[in-house]
Amino acid sequence: MRILLVGATGTIGKAILDVLQDRHEVVAVSRSSAPLHVDLGDPASIRSLFNQLGTLDAVVGAAGAARFKPFPLLKDEDYAFSLQNKLMGQVNLIRYGIPALSDAGSITVTTGLLAQQPMVGSAAVSLVNAALEGFVRAAALEAPRGIRINAVSPPWVRVADQSPGAPGMAGLSAHQVALAYRVLLEGDQTGQVVTP
Amino acid sequence: MRILLVGATGTIGKAILDVLQDRHEVVAVSRSSAPLHVDLGDPASIRSLFNQLGTLDAVVGAAGAARFKPFPLLKDEDYAFSLQNKLMGQVNLIRYGIPALSDAGSITVTTGLLAQQPMVGSAAVSLVNAALEGFVRAAALEAPRGIRINAVSPPWVRVADQSPGAPGMAGLSAHQVALAYRVLLEGDQTGQVVTP
Repeated sequence: MRILLVGATGTIGKAILDVLQDRHEVVAVSRSSAPLHVDLGDPASIRSLFNQLGTLDAVVGAAGAARFKPFPLLKDEDYAFSLQNKLMGQVNLIRYGIPALSDAGSITVTTGLLAQQPMVGSAAVSLVNAALEGFVRAAALEAPRGIRINAVSPPWVRVADQSPGAPGMAGLSAHQVALAYRVLLEGDQTGQVVTP
Repeated sequence: MRILLVGATGTIGKAILDVLQDRHEVVAVSRSSAPLHVDLGDPASIRSLFNQLGTLDAVVGAAGAARFKPFPLLKDEDYAFSLQNKLMGQVNLIRYGIPALSDAGSITVTTGLLAQQPMVGSAAVSLVNAALEGFVRAAALEAPRGIRINAVSPPWVRVADQSPGAPGMAGLSAHQVALAYRVLLEGDQTGQVVTP
């Protein structure tokens, strides 16, 4: 399969690249990659990326920023930024990506644990992640040509390798999370939000 | 209790007014009410409303528009409108409403069945409703002074009285839905999304 991976330099994105690149042709893109790059907060940048790529068999979104701050400090602009970037950036990867996909292709985007299990500071992030889950469930019903749309909702991810028993051991490895994307890519599910 | 009801002229809003007004003082407001009115799509209008009201014991949001259209016909502007109106309108009722509330006051907003059970045409509505549910769960964790934040997720509502057995009988009555708001107002739950 020819796969576009957006967010290829993040913790999860690097692990996704790692589990896909031996089995598929991966076009790995980030905000600062070259020659191709993409700014998820800018719809024109996403459209331009697809215009340069030709036909794809899958799109994976593992990028997008949202503001994590104590509730009283979240301003109008923090909500606007979070909606424009992590939410509409990934919504637009789906909307604009569909025409670029071959029949029975797939798009897999990234939500997160805070959609369903909030914590102090997560109001804007929880909003955005839950929104994307609602969108994925709905958009999957109307995707044409057998195209599948899913999301991975990662739990806390260990950032560095750690010895067993070390502090901060909680969370899955990025590799374990990345396998969930591969299962969705190579499987036949649609409209699913998968927690690795 | 002194309660602000936003969306007092809708099918559900009228029924909420009906079940609250014998027991509480209800300030009923809609887009076109007078002297007070509010445009949920305009943050300044919401701020102005609270500035004119003084202290409240509860806020109920039963208003907000989102675009229901086949997925291929949903344009960038449809998403922007839906985010600005039903989503951020109710998010801002919560954000701007908190300072207007007495200690242990409450805010109850409205999501909808399509958050979790999408249908053809609901991509933007499902996104918005799910987003508001994620936000309510998170914001409730950080509400000050014992203030409670909840949502009602109405199922399909019967629009007119119908004889038993008549076509279109499916769905709850608006009265039954309105009772869920009253239970949340008078109860002690917080961070809940209640399906009547």
